[in-house]
Amino acid sequence: MNEKLGAVINRPTKFLETFENPNPERNYHIRIDTPEFTCLCPKTGQPDFAEIKLDYVPDQQCVELKSLKLYYWSFRDEGHFHEKVTNMIANDLITLLAPRYLKIQAVFNVRGGLYTTIEVEHGHP
Amino acid sequence: MNEKLGAVINRPTKFLETFENPNPERNYHIRIDTPEFTCLCPKTGQPDFAEIKLDYVPDQQCVELKSLKLYYWSFRDEGHFHEKVTNMIANDLITLLAPRYLKIQAVFNVRGGLYTTIEVEHGHP
Amino acid sequence: MNEKLGAVINRPTKFLETFENPNPERNYHIRIDTPEFTCLCPKTGQPDFAEIKLDYVPDQQCVELKSLKLYYWSFRDEGHFHEKVTNMIANDLITLLAPRYLKIQAVFNVRGGLYTTIEVEHGHP
Amino acid sequence: MNEKLGAVINRPTKFLETFENPNPERNYHIRIDTPEFTCLCPKTGQPDFAEIKLDYVPDQQCVELKSLKLYYWSFRDEGHFHEKVTNMIANDLITLLAPRYLKIQAVFNVRGGLYTTIEVEHGHP
Amino acid sequence: MNEKLGAVINRPTKFLETFENPNPERNYHIRIDTPEFTCLCPKTGQPDFAEIKLDYVPDQQCVELKSLKLYYWSFRDEGHFHEKVTNMIANDLITLLAPRYLKIQAVFNVRGGLYTTIEVEHGHP
Amino acid sequence: MNEKLGAVINRPTKFLETFENPNPERNYHIRIDTPEFTCLCPKTGQPDFAEIKLDYVPDQQCVELKSLKLYYWSFRDEGHFHEKVTNMIANDLITLLAPRYLKIQAVFNVRGGLYTTIEVEHGHP
Amino acid sequence: MNEKLGAVINRPTKFLETFENPNPERNYHIRIDTPEFTCLCPKTGQPDFAEIKLDYVPDQQCVELKSLKLYYWSFRDEGHFHEKVTNMIANDLITLLAPRYLKIQAVFNVRGGLYTTIEVEHGHP
Amino acid sequence: MNEKLGAVINRPTKFLETFENPNPERNYHIRIDTPEFTCLCPKTGQPDFAEIKLDYVPDQQCVELKSLKLYYWSFRDEGHFHEKVTNMIANDLITLLAPRYLKIQAVFNVRGGLYTTIEVEHGHP
Amino acid sequence: MNEKLGAVINRPTKFLETFENPNPERNYHIRIDTPEFTCLCPKTGQPDFAEIKLDYVPDQQCVELKSLKLYYWSFRDEGHFHEKVTNMIANDLITLLAPRYLKIQAVFNVRGGLYTTIEVEHGHP
Amino acid sequence: MNEKLGAVINRPTKFLETFENPNPERNYHIRIDTPEFTCLCPKTGQPDFAEIKLDYVPDQQCVELKSLKLYYWSFRDEGHFHEKVTNMIANDLITLLAPRYLKIQAVFNVRGGLYTTIEVEHGHP
Ligand SMILES: [Ca+2]
Ligand SMILES: [Ca+2]
Ligand SMILES: [Ca+2]
Ligand SMILES: [Ca+2]
Ligand SMILES: [Ca+2]
Ligand SMILES: [Ca+2]
Ligand SMILES: [Ca+2]
Ligand SMILES: [Ca+2]
Ligand SMILES: [Ca+2]
Ligand SMILES: [Ca+2]
Ligand SMILES: [Ca+2]
Ligand SMILES: [Ca+2]
Ligand SMILES: [Ca+2]
Ligand SMILES: [Ca+2]
Ligand SMILES: [Ca+2]
Ligand SMILES: [Ca+2]
Repeated sequence: MNEKLGAVINRPTKFLETFENPNPERNYHIRIDTPEFTCLCPKTGQPDFAEIKLDYVPDQQCVELKSLKLYYWSFRDEGHFHEKVTNMIANDLITLLAPRYLKIQAVFNVRGGLYTTIEVEHGHP
Repeated sequence: MNEKLGAVINRPTKFLETFENPNPERNYHIRIDTPEFTCLCPKTGQPDFAEIKLDYVPDQQCVELKSLKLYYWSFRDEGHFHEKVTNMIANDLITLLAPRYLKIQAVFNVRGGLYTTIEVEHGHP
Repeated sequence: MNEKLGAVINRPTKFLETFENPNPERNYHIRIDTPEFTCLCPKTGQPDFAEIKLDYVPDQQCVELKSLKLYYWSFRDEGHFHEKVTNMIANDLITLLAPRYLKIQAVFNVRGGLYTTIEVEHGHP
Repeated sequence: MNEKLGAVINRPTKFLETFENPNPERNYHIRIDTPEFTCLCPKTGQPDFAEIKLDYVPDQQCVELKSLKLYYWSFRDEGHFHEKVTNMIANDLITLLAPRYLKIQAVFNVRGGLYTTIEVEHGHP
Repeated sequence: MNEKLGAVINRPTKFLETFENPNPERNYHIRIDTPEFTCLCPKTGQPDFAEIKLDYVPDQQCVELKSLKLYYWSFRDEGHFHEKVTNMIANDLITLLAPRYLKIQAVFNVRGGLYTTIEVEHGHP
Repeated sequence: MNEKLGAVINRPTKFLETFENPNPERNYHIRIDTPEFTCLCPKTGQPDFAEIKLDYVPDQQCVELKSLKLYYWSFRDEGHFHEKVTNMIANDLITLLAPRYLKIQAVFNVRGGLYTTIEVEHGHP
Repeated sequence: MNEKLGAVINRPTKFLETFENPNPERNYHIRIDTPEFTCLCPKTGQPDFAEIKLDYVPDQQCVELKSLKLYYWSFRDEGHFHEKVTNMIANDLITLLAPRYLKIQAVFNVRGGLYTTIEVEHGHP
Repeated sequence: MNEKLGAVINRPTKFLETFENPNPERNYHIRIDTPEFTCLCPKTGQPDFAEIKLDYVPDQQCVELKSLKLYYWSFRDEGHFHEKVTNMIANDLITLLAPRYLKIQAVFNVRGGLYTTIEVEHGHP
Repeated sequence: MNEKLGAVINRPTKFLETFENPNPERNYHIRIDTPEFTCLCPKTGQPDFAEIKLDYVPDQQCVELKSLKLYYWSFRDEGHFHEKVTNMIANDLITLLAPRYLKIQAVFNVRGGLYTTIEVEHGHP
Repeated sequence: MNEKLGAVINRPTKFLETFENPNPERNYHIRIDTPEFTCLCPKTGQPDFAEIKLDYVPDQQCVELKSLKLYYWSFRDEGHFHEKVTNMIANDLITLLAPRYLKIQAVFNVRGGLYTTIEVEHGHP
């Protein structure tokens, strides 16, 4: 965001904040998509781009939105294979939230004529 | 609606009206979507916008359309987190209608590059 | 239809014709949609518009297409609530056809910012 | 709109209301589309359906929205050929508003496999 | 935006900030659209919703993005007719920026089956 | 059309009917599209399929819709090259109507991986 | 295809050719759609148009593509009701192929404002 | 096309056939698109894919469809830069047809995150 | 990709490389689509085009992306029927990867008005 | 591209390469779009994302594709306002190519509910 009035300077971080699930008595879905994920190819060093789609059923904790944005930002200068980075994000969120269900889809931009998507699921929806 | 001929001035209200289900002998679905839901962010005070999708199977009562519109309007000046407000709407409608099935989806407008949807389900479709 | 050569003047009617299912030895689906359904609001008298989607598995009888068109036309000057008129159409077709399965979806045009759909199912597809 | 709380009963009318153009010092466009126009075929008596698209540059007067809706409604029980009814609407609005520019497009639903649109323009955009 | 970490509380304002056009030696277009405009109907008091599309060629000044967002927010509790509010926004921006060209389109949500768009242009693109 | 009640048996014909332009004092457009045109390939005898789009500004005469449908039908068993048949239709309509403007577009279905469209214009729109 | 170089003249035929399934050890799907099906209405003699969608799991035999095209062509001058012709095609292919699964969908063009689709299934996918 | 009955074996060729324009007395457009163009990258030898869009106004000659298909095929094993091959096709067709107008657009598949289109025009449409 | 700086010349190959599944402890999906598959028709020798969609759940090995691209390229000069080539690709990948699940869909470009898709599945998703 | 076989490690660079226009005798368009542009907000330091669309008519020089990709990459760690960075790219390409015509459109991702596009044109198309 273009915070030109009273701008807040932010930093990428691996630290994910949580808040208490306001309705843990019920199973419900939280879906958060971002088309703004980018990291580097570990072989060539060139940028990769992906849309990350998160869908989870919270137990006691929910992931805080701004910290999730900064967490995604933290991959910007890191080199990762598609399969590995998708599982890393899934593992970080599963460890953080112990959710009743979680799915991560990483839809990578085309490379060499190939369109690649990695989809990781934890538990049952 | 622009009721310029003989205009009726309306007010937002938490009071939801019902009418008797004309066909309670049968399970059937009533789906009511509105792209016109807005409330405030409880942290920053800024407006949030969402599309609210309701799908329910009535038992003895159905929700009256105009009162539902005024009920959605009543959130306009209130501050709520996404997860909480979606569960509040679900709870209010479940208490009012005791429906055989109910689902609420709140599709919030993008904030900080993140697209958030909350989906609450009650019973089985 | 614009039947300008040798025009046939038709009338709306509640009378639905049938013809014999040519293949009753098999379960198969007949789907007939019309975007041209209109009736009146019983409270305000103003026109409502809907798309009616019919899907059924015939037993011994199928509904004749032109009589279905005239039947839908017969609602043009009648006042009905959304829930009631959808169940009426379902009941009339179930009584007429005794189908192995039937579903009616009535997708009403937006009113007051609310998009309403009523869906009635009979039997299993 | 489903005005179930304190319902106002309305009537179709050929009488179109106007209000004063709030900014006559400037040329600007007002576009009003309705997918809810219906009249009758003058040959067969069967319903025709159309989307009516209006685009005009007001001079001293603007057409009032609710009266336009009731005006469109007034064609519901009248028989008109496609070409004639589109020119009628254009003429009525030109007489009423004396606009600097006006265009009417009537997009009729398919009949006999033919999709017909009539477009009338008055002045230059 | 969900500024949950170190949140900045903002206020709606009619005060629009500008910054110096970095390239006044060239004619170029700046287009800023928001689907998040809402004000009130001056007759009924009910909320209206619109998408506001701005397109301008700057002269010496550009409008600052965050102040534009707060400016749009300032209409949230005000009652305005469609035609008037669109011209008001155009006038405020023309006074502020003295742009070489400016166009405002306000695409209002459907009311009573009518879809209304107001388009104001200043100068030539 | 499925005219099962009191069916009228029709025949394909090259004879096109007209009716008097109800508003010759004004230039306006009549657009009639059909996705249901089929003729034969003059080399192989196999069926070709096209969508025919007609746009004209009438002078004293308009083409009658049902006769146009029967006219299009008359090509069903005839063999014609794409370029020729499109010009034939244009010529027949120009001779019949002496229109102020006319355009025919014939969008043929893909053959051998090639998508062909022929567009003929007469006069200026 | 426009086979203008060394053209082959073909004929419509009810004779369907097959070839041996190259991989009968596995269940797999073959889907063949054509938007180019046309026959005649048995009541009025006028042309009907449909898209035919075939999906099957072969056992020992597959249907040869060119003969399927000529088979569809063979209906061009025949009069059939929608329900009957769809079941005829299904029966012919089931008799020919003895497939492990087969589905035919016939999506007919709109007639009298009604959109009709017939769907026949044989076995389980 | 899968010409399995009485198959004709074809060859790629640079030889383009023409036929006489059946209506040279009139300016009209012939548009032929193919999504099936492929050649090789002259640097890496890897396949490139493009959609080729041709639009021309014939003078005395039209390009024959099947020979155009074989002509496009002839580039399959040749190495060419995007800009060059598009101009080559334009030049070959201009030399062949001496058209009143011609445009070639070559829409290449994405490479390295870049989507490239080359557009060559000859004369005025 | 247009590797004009320090170009690497590549060759088509049937040799598929693998790398170790970084997360074999979890079932997850890898989806790789290419719109750039082409081979030859074994009857006519003419080019066929298809989009190949791969979806698999890896066990111990994943297919390396660049080698998959070169593998698809290797079919460019080979003649294969649609059904056979799709099963060949499935078999090669199943032999290579011994995946927990695999699906191949080959969506071929239209030929003779027929759109053909072959879908092969191995195991359960 | 995932250059895992014989990988070439690349670096972002401001150095743009050119090659000689192969057809300077003709005005033609080269269009190159990338959805993969990212830089930083100069106020907050957070990433911005944009699609960059380039359209130019070359004179004596064309921009080399791979160097353009590396050039766009060079903005990844730089902070720039939307208006400035778009004019910078335009200026760099105009200086490099001295094109007969050039247009740059930068379509930025939504921030704070505002969708911003900057469009710079040089010369006439
Ligand atoms: Ca569930
Ligand atoms: Ca159900
Ligand atoms: Ca409609
Ligand atoms: Ca079934
Ligand atoms: Ca203007
Ligand atoms: Ca919206
Ligand atoms: Ca310009
Ligand atoms: Ca079609
Ligand atoms: Ca005009
Ligand atoms: Ca299966
Ligand atoms: Ca393509
Ligand atoms: Ca022209
Ligand atoms: Ca394709
Ligand atoms: Ca699963
Ligand atoms: Ca994108
Ligand atoms: Ca040009």
